[in-house]
Amino acid sequence: MPRYKCLLAYVGTRYAGWQVQDVKKAPLTIQGELEKVLLKVTGSLVRVHAAGRTDAGVHAEGQVVHFTTEKAKSAQEWEHIFGALLPPDICVQQVHVVTDDFHSRFKSIAKTYRYTLWIHAQDETALPVPPRLRPFVWSCGHVDVQRMQGALPYLRGKHDFCALQNVGTPMEDTERTIQRLELGFGSSWAPSEYTPHTLTLEVQGDGFLKQMVRNMTGLLVAVGKGKLLAHDIPQLLAQKHRPKLPATAPACGLTLWRVYYDDADLEEALVTSEENI
Amino acid sequence: MPRYKCLLAYVGTRYAGWQVQDVKKAPLTIQGELEKVLLKVTGSLVRVHAAGRTDAGVHAEGQVVHFTTEKAKSAQEWEHIFGALLPPDICVQQVHVVTDDFHSRFKSIAKTYRYTLWIHAQDETALPVPPRLRPFVWSCGHVDVQRMQGALPYLRGKHDFCALQNVGTPMEDTERTIQRLELGFGSSWAPSEYTPHTLTLEVQGDGFLKQMVRNMTGLLVAVGKGKLLAHDIPQLLAQKHRPKLPATAPACGLTLWRVYYDDADLEEALVTSEENI
Repeated sequence: MPRYKCLLAYVGTRYAGWQVQDVKKAPLTIQGELEKVLLKVTGSLVRVHAAGRTDAGVHAEGQVVHFTTEKAKSAQEWEHIFGALLPPDICVQQVHVVTDDFHSRFKSIAKTYRYTLWIHAQDETALPVPPRLRPFVWSCGHVDVQRMQGALPYLRGKHDFCALQNVGTPMEDTERTIQRLELGFGSSWAPSEYTPHTLTLEVQGDGFLKQMVRNMTGLLVAVGKGKLLAHDIPQLLAQKHRPKLPATAPACGLTLWRVYYDDADLEEALVTSEENI
Repeated sequence: MPRYKCLLAYVGTRYAGWQVQDVKKAPLTIQGELEKVLLKVTGSLVRVHAAGRTDAGVHAEGQVVHFTTEKAKSAQEWEHIFGALLPPDICVQQVHVVTDDFHSRFKSIAKTYRYTLWIHAQDETALPVPPRLRPFVWSCGHVDVQRMQGALPYLRGKHDFCALQNVGTPMEDTERTIQRLELGFGSSWAPSEYTPHTLTLEVQGDGFLKQMVRNMTGLLVAVGKGKLLAHDIPQLLAQKHRPKLPATAPACGLTLWRVYYDDADLEEALVTSEENI
């Protein structure tokens, strides 16, 4: 049976996350919307698998998903079908025919997330978030950006990130490698006049625990607000105990940015990442 | 009675335009939302006047409005009140106390609008509009940008724009001066990777007839699609007859960008406009 890989972007605001929920009065989900289209076109339930199962309210620019169906169609036909039948806040940007050993999640070697903060300088009145940006940022007040940057080295590399895993969803193996972690002013989705008010955190890793990026953001903002010291981070991670750490950052600021399947993807990411923030 | 001038931004998608509609089951309007806040705080109907009475679905970055009320509050108090009580897609960015001869519409000497198009090159498959941009652009397919630019000189300056006034809303004096009219690739709200797909039209004039910018955009896109020739524009304007002209461009692509009250405002606009597109 033919298998298809899709590149997907969405605004997560209206959705209860990626994953279909098997409950009465099931809420809208991204997976659910895609499977509705596939049911309509193929007449049967076609399961769609995503590289990153984003939470409620989280957005995606470069989500990758795959599905397998008896209904053989060209990649372009699928692009037209999704273009015509998906709601306007979900967009299948590209479809590729792939071999049946491709798996969007298990074959990915890395993912990048971006988290956008709306901040203000210490002695400055807070500038309200422009309405266009509200669904995409966490307005977290004043933070000391240099302090936050000083905390990044403690999070880069291979660590047991158990303390940054959301309670209630335990995982056996909580060791992950953060390959890249950068924090800079500006957002590629906001005019340059807003650059001093926007901070973009870019995190690339070989895998992420549940709400790990949002917990990492919460941790960094706590450092930026002087509630924690950067050099306390190793000890906090070593305690492996989530409740001792700052609150999870809100979903709206987070975007699944890219999913990588081979080293060539990754190299390209390294070259272009700086200019894109 | 104290008078207040407010700088206002909004995402117009959910609204039936600026103006309150005196009908049963009145739809949501920007003016209505502001007046609801004022009613709550002052206990009486306070009329809010806007520089540009934007249509349904049109957005604003720099709308200017004013109101007069017996309730004396500081500018900062009003900023907090609006911040707390307005829905998230409307934002009062600044409040100033003004003298009672200030009027947002009658005292304005010029306004700038921006219209954003999503386009693709001639031999290129159309790239779907990213979901984040959908509420803010008109996806108009392939256009010849050079041809469109060649049409701009015919629209700059003082003209009778009767042919670009929407039918059904006649105005006696239909002469207006377009002080600046520029068309360039890119949008300040989209990442640089999308620059080849976005075209921003910036129009500054001393005044605008109903739907004049959207009609002008429709005209320019018709030129870009080869349905009209640039040098036919003077004759089309001279006919003063709207129905002969291309259809009005959709509301979603339009944003009221700035309102100017004195020459200093305007000079600043000229200096910064280029880099901001």
